[in-house]
Amino acid sequence: MRQNIPLEQAQSILEACVQPIGKETVRLNEALGRVLAEEIVANEDIPPFDRSPFDGYAFRAADTQTASLTNPVTLTIIEEVPAGYAPTKQVTPGTAVKILTGAPIPEGADTVIKYEDTEFTETEVKVFGPAKPGANIVTAGEDVPKGTVLVEPGTVITAPVLGLLAALGLTEIVVFKRPRIAIISTGNELLDVSEPLLPGKIRNSNSYTLQGYLQTCGLEPVVIGIARDKKEEVAAKVEEGLAKADMVITTGGVSVGDYDVVKDALEMFGAEILYWQIDIKPGSATLAAQKDGKLIIGLSGNPAAAMVVLQLLVLPIIKKMAGRSAYANKKIEVILKEDFRKASPRRRFLRGTLVFENGLTYMRTTGGQGNAVLSSLIGCNLLAEIPAGSGPIQRGEKLTAYLVDC
Amino acid sequence: MRQNIPLEQAQSILEACVQPIGKETVRLNEALGRVLAEEIVANEDIPPFDRSPFDGYAFRAADTQTASLTNPVTLTIIEEVPAGYAPTKQVTPGTAVKILTGAPIPEGADTVIKYEDTEFTETEVKVFGPAKPGANIVTAGEDVPKGTVLVEPGTVITAPVLGLLAALGLTEIVVFKRPRIAIISTGNELLDVSEPLLPGKIRNSNSYTLQGYLQTCGLEPVVIGIARDKKEEVAAKVEEGLAKADMVITTGGVSVGDYDVVKDALEMFGAEILYWQIDIKPGSATLAAQKDGKLIIGLSGNPAAAMVVLQLLVLPIIKKMAGRSAYANKKIEVILKEDFRKASPRRRFLRGTLVFENGLTYMRTTGGQGNAVLSSLIGCNLLAEIPAGSGPIQRGEKLTAYLVDC
Repeated sequence: MRQNIPLEQAQSILEACVQPIGKETVRLNEALGRVLAEEIVANEDIPPFDRSPFDGYAFRAADTQTASLTNPVTLTIIEEVPAGYAPTKQVTPGTAVKILTGAPIPEGADTVIKYEDTEFTETEVKVFGPAKPGANIVTAGEDVPKGTVLVEPGTVITAPVLGLLAALGLTEIVVFKRPRIAIISTGNELLDVSEPLLPGKIRNSNSYTLQGYLQTCGLEPVVIGIARDKKEEVAAKVEEGLAKADMVITTGGVSVGDYDVVKDALEMFGAEILYWQIDIKPGSATLAAQKDGKLIIGLSGNPAAAMVVLQLLVLPIIKKMAGRSAYANKKIEVILKEDFRKASPRRRFLRGTLVFENGLTYMRTTGGQGNAVLSSLIGCNLLAEIPAGSGPIQRGEKLTAYLVDC
Repeated sequence: MRQNIPLEQAQSILEACVQPIGKETVRLNEALGRVLAEEIVANEDIPPFDRSPFDGYAFRAADTQTASLTNPVTLTIIEEVPAGYAPTKQVTPGTAVKILTGAPIPEGADTVIKYEDTEFTETEVKVFGPAKPGANIVTAGEDVPKGTVLVEPGTVITAPVLGLLAALGLTEIVVFKRPRIAIISTGNELLDVSEPLLPGKIRNSNSYTLQGYLQTCGLEPVVIGIARDKKEEVAAKVEEGLAKADMVITTGGVSVGDYDVVKDALEMFGAEILYWQIDIKPGSATLAAQKDGKLIIGLSGNPAAAMVVLQLLVLPIIKKMAGRSAYANKKIEVILKEDFRKASPRRRFLRGTLVFENGLTYMRTTGGQGNAVLSSLIGCNLLAEIPAGSGPIQRGEKLTAYLVDC
């Protein structure tokens, strides 16, 4: 069994284990936030035809080459085309079409002029200068030309993607299925949130925090509940989770103590332990196992340690399962805003928030960095790395950090 | 009527018109993404008691001041306390309690030592050096001390906030009501998404894009549908929207042409026009009105122009209605990644995406900047400002930009 491995090795091991879990078709109005499972190629131009950006007159630019303020060209208005209507006549030399915002450019016309820049009656329009061919025409396909690959598979459907799918008339969209993630909390000390505190007990907050992170990423948590520190009980809950979900996350019971029964429980029903412990702080107490092609991730019972590993390692893996092509956390460089006084014999990740100042990217830590300090995950969108063997870090030093927004 | 006003003036006018629309109580498992309407003060320490971070022995540090490798101190084990149990005995001189990860520190003890650093039997433990008082104790309130204001009203409930609410045993949460936003699309040219294209027609994509942006911000869109370019029809739909929702957004019909009937429609049923046109590009064709204390926002029918104004001006206002204290878009400085060749006689906002490089913040434009180009809103998380009267902008120049992630 691999033990105390680098984060990157854990990442590769888990990445190799997961695949998108299948596709399904959803209606357009259920597609927001889902992950596209097919390439979207524009089967039409968006917009679908050349059109006028304002109310004016469409005509042949060539007709106005001699026009001037003192010697305007007069064109005969042969038709009026509002938005939503198709022109029925062709523009020939000496004629113009009154055209309204969003209406299609009539055949024969190659330019549009604003009505404010003309003099007009119901039947005639005067143009006071030479028009430029192509001027004031929003061309078909200005937004997306027909044949363009509009979005690649693996893209999350955001609001503008949704709008463009609508513009193309796509009412049914093929997306990746959402992975279902089972959540199990282990520990004799855990109470349900609604129970009053008893001596030695704490409330099961990890289940809520985990659900929150998973839902924020558009995933479906399946809460299995609390298992006491008995390997038979943990094993039974994990097997229930495997039956109901595509992956299982447990919290607690993965350290080295007498009551750390998760590893034994997994081995009991034949799961293969992929690794135990990662060489980082916080969150070294963690493991991964596999059973029948499904991953089981054991996180620390300490809230912050659990959530840091969730963000650094587990959410990217789940995003890969969800079909996202850009599943890895982005790495950026930040300047530390304040001193961090502790030495870091071990590779450490600091919780912080991105601060923009004068075109530079800074990180301000979000509070205490202890294993139990969940409050410093509020507003935390950066996990900055301090290499193993570092002394105290001073403000102004540069660190590499992962962006951990979902 | 105010006309062609600066963006900031429009912002102040709209800000003055909106308030959170009320409070409601939700269960903890429905609270994610909602906006807190009350201050959350920790009514208990989190964690609730001093505890051990690992399996070991708890005792009085004073007992071990003479201990050394060659002359260890032997303590009598009086009890074993696993996580989830309360100690029943007090630690007195010469005694120790076997303590397991997460268990409460017994009275009398002021230090903990890892079991690996001792020699032990069932009844005795040998300590080989002087222990430090307070060492290896996770103190009560390390995460959140009792009495702390944990979260202020106006805060969005993210995953770690949810977890901390759970840790405090708060099963019902007072949040602001979600504003309902009615969406109306105006235009003779509009087809439903499911209809085949006809000459001169386009599909009603704006409704989907708007729904997407509103839902991404945790809001409830109410789709009223399409109104033709007749003021009676627009007025009827807007009145339906006002009856069903807390605010109405229309698209189309707000420019200066013959078929721009939205302003007339609003005046027809007695809405007060707050302003018409904003001095920016894209999106100058926009208006705001008020009727019986509810806002009506008219956006351009051009997809990108509409969505830029939505992000710059309207979403912040809606976030204020939703009760968020941090509702304004953050302003940052970015370095342009490529040339923008056009001159900007008018104040212009460029769509782009944030790029982090070597600790600096850059913006890469996301595509064409025309009024109709919705595709350049894909991946757009920045709207960078080019001041009125600017010539072409070269790569490497600094611009001020609004972060427009929801």
